[in-house]
Amino acid sequence: MKFIKTPVKGMVDMLPQDMRLRRHVLDIIRGSYSQYGFMEIETPVMEHIENLTSKQGGDNEKLIFKVLKRGADLQRAIDAGKGEYADNGLRYDLTLPLARYYANNREKLPAPFKALQMGNVWRADNPQKGRFRQFMQCDIDILGDDSDLAEIELIAATSNTLSRIFSEIGITDFTIHINDRRILSGAALKAGFKEEDIESVLISLDKYDKIGVDGVRAELIENGYDPQTVDSYLQVYGQDRFDCDAFCSAIGDEYLDPEIVRRMDEIMACSAAMIDSHITIEFDPTLVRGMGYYTGTIFEVSIDGYNFSIAGGGRYDKMIGRFCGQDVSACGFSIGFERIITILRDHMEGDMKIDENNTAFLIDKKVPSEKKMEVLRQAAQLRAQGTTVIVQPMRKNMKQQINMLEAQGYTKFEKIYKD
Amino acid sequence: MKFIKTPVKGMVDMLPQDMRLRRHVLDIIRGSYSQYGFMEIETPVMEHIENLTSKQGGDNEKLIFKVLKRGADLQRAIDAGKGEYADNGLRYDLTLPLARYYANNREKLPAPFKALQMGNVWRADNPQKGRFRQFMQCDIDILGDDSDLAEIELIAATSNTLSRIFSEIGITDFTIHINDRRILSGAALKAGFKEEDIESVLISLDKYDKIGVDGVRAELIENGYDPQTVDSYLQVYGQDRFDCDAFCSAIGDEYLDPEIVRRMDEIMACSAAMIDSHITIEFDPTLVRGMGYYTGTIFEVSIDGYNFSIAGGGRYDKMIGRFCGQDVSACGFSIGFERIITILRDHMEGDMKIDENNTAFLIDKKVPSEKKMEVLRQAAQLRAQGTTVIVQPMRKNMKQQINMLEAQGYTKFEKIYKD
Repeated sequence: MKFIKTPVKGMVDMLPQDMRLRRHVLDIIRGSYSQYGFMEIETPVMEHIENLTSKQGGDNEKLIFKVLKRGADLQRAIDAGKGEYADNGLRYDLTLPLARYYANNREKLPAPFKALQMGNVWRADNPQKGRFRQFMQCDIDILGDDSDLAEIELIAATSNTLSRIFSEIGITDFTIHINDRRILSGAALKAGFKEEDIESVLISLDKYDKIGVDGVRAELIENGYDPQTVDSYLQVYGQDRFDCDAFCSAIGDEYLDPEIVRRMDEIMACSAAMIDSHITIEFDPTLVRGMGYYTGTIFEVSIDGYNFSIAGGGRYDKMIGRFCGQDVSACGFSIGFERIITILRDHMEGDMKIDENNTAFLIDKKVPSEKKMEVLRQAAQLRAQGTTVIVQPMRKNMKQQINMLEAQGYTKFEKIYKD
Repeated sequence: MKFIKTPVKGMVDMLPQDMRLRRHVLDIIRGSYSQYGFMEIETPVMEHIENLTSKQGGDNEKLIFKVLKRGADLQRAIDAGKGEYADNGLRYDLTLPLARYYANNREKLPAPFKALQMGNVWRADNPQKGRFRQFMQCDIDILGDDSDLAEIELIAATSNTLSRIFSEIGITDFTIHINDRRILSGAALKAGFKEEDIESVLISLDKYDKIGVDGVRAELIENGYDPQTVDSYLQVYGQDRFDCDAFCSAIGDEYLDPEIVRRMDEIMACSAAMIDSHITIEFDPTLVRGMGYYTGTIFEVSIDGYNFSIAGGGRYDKMIGRFCGQDVSACGFSIGFERIITILRDHMEGDMKIDENNTAFLIDKKVPSEKKMEVLRQAAQLRAQGTTVIVQPMRKNMKQQINMLEAQGYTKFEKIYKD
């Protein structure tokens, strides 16, 4: 039987030049975040299927790769005939596993806890350009801090880390969009929508940047909402730029706690004080973010010329309580690593440069043992001094061999002939 | 519903101090191997179920975590009733995926190709101390080099890398065991076993280090082999140390190509010339290694006081051909990362030290925005200068908070009160 040599659908083999770029970016991210006091942790890639299908993940739950039960458990599941074949699944994000992790290890962790995770997640999505079924996310989260310092630190750390990554290719300008779930709710309630309609209204509003205010209006009316309510709702949205205080005072204290507005102002002002002047922080009342678990502030990062966000996050104060019975405030920011790699690749000419001081020993196959040993001792000495050394059999077409090695950064060639 | 807060059976949540040690060791491994010209690559964690269940993995194939088909495919599988619910599985090692990868990407890779992989693998084994269902392996492989330079480079790179890791905790002595599948076959054939019995005979011989020569004898006879053949076979095995030339000449040219013996001698001599003098290279004709795919040299690394090997590998010249229809010589060495971490932990007092020049800003919750902004600007400046800075709300029990931060490496504390 011949085996299948392509990777599984929607997943990618990383070539050496791909990995070099990925490692470089991952090292920047790790180094930068550790300066902010974030500590790296790791959870298993598999989670209990009960946790993964608990309605915390929204639409992502439809995309879970499920892991088959084994042995007697599987047989019992087949016999029962209820289709419950899976006991575990691959994580679709790093947030739900973090909530479980924190509930499980809380007493061993500092408070507040600043976590860094860099790991793959899996979604059985339809593969598209730049969208894969296995992809990496880099998340920072602050658990156990209910003050707005959590938001401020997350925004500062993420902005400055993105700055470090993109400055290498000359991109310095990007925008942090910020909003609050409670402002979204307040605006909808004020216009006359009912509490139970908010979710559906926000699903339409979420398309604002694609279909505009008229598109959102059409969809809401199509969904059966009262046109007068819809118009009242969208009146405040038909603008290019939004002022937080003006927008929120239009909602009014009855539907929006003024403390939320004060906090939003402080987050924006304090974050701005900590980040590169090229980065804009912008109040964006059209920002919704899909995940159902957010409870307060939400944010996203966009970059000119790309119609996707490169990072996003927010506050989710209710998730950890689902695991340990006691709410723990939590706020996180996730970098879409693959999207960043896509943008870097777009702006790079060729592959990443490699160190070019490497030595290659090319040894004729007929060189006797004694001489070979002597040469290998030399190679070992060079390596002990810190040089990168490759040792290879000399090939018939040595010119081609040397060209290939030069492309890998080898500049010195020691040719060892049999005599 | 309350969620499950423990990790999936047999898998582990990594605490910050665990990750610190793991990162440290992974960085040594990556740095050391890259000096030998190995280039890092990555394959998806999932492979086609057909590849994983193709008899290349021996007993590991019984331990595969299988991934359920999705959507219409799953429904068809259920309707068909043949139990074929899985289309993919999680990789149980890094070798089979590498063979697929090489077949798929060969024309984009240098020849010979020196690959480094550091990644998790999954086996639904019974969890034991130090044995997990998700664990990391660090593999180097040389593809497309049929000369013994491949073995020599692999042994030198692995030995010196292990040396770097263990010298930090004062362990300098370990042993490389080396053998060849063709020597194992030759010895069995010479004694009178049939070709088709070799696999079963080697399964018994593999227990030599646990049950001794008498145990192996008893098992072989119990399995129905002729006692005279068994005695003839084991006659040469009843020793403490083995000399390669003596052992092989007892087999004789008829059952063992003298070129194999010459090559083994050269591998041992040349490897010894490249590695730390504390490391012993020992011909070990009792070394079998379980995986069915090995075709020539095999090796393993042991360390005094531990009854498990910490690294192992060998030559497998026939696997890549299964993917691309054309044999490509291949040889690899895999470090058992989790076992190394276990040994390091045994020898360390407490956790890894952390850099201790970090600054913590503790901010009273009532500090007004303006002052907060000023303080955050200072924190940003310190970070820009390279200092690690944490910013936290001041807690009521500040003494406890400072103790906790000191344990994380913070030595300077800036306390910001509201006035």
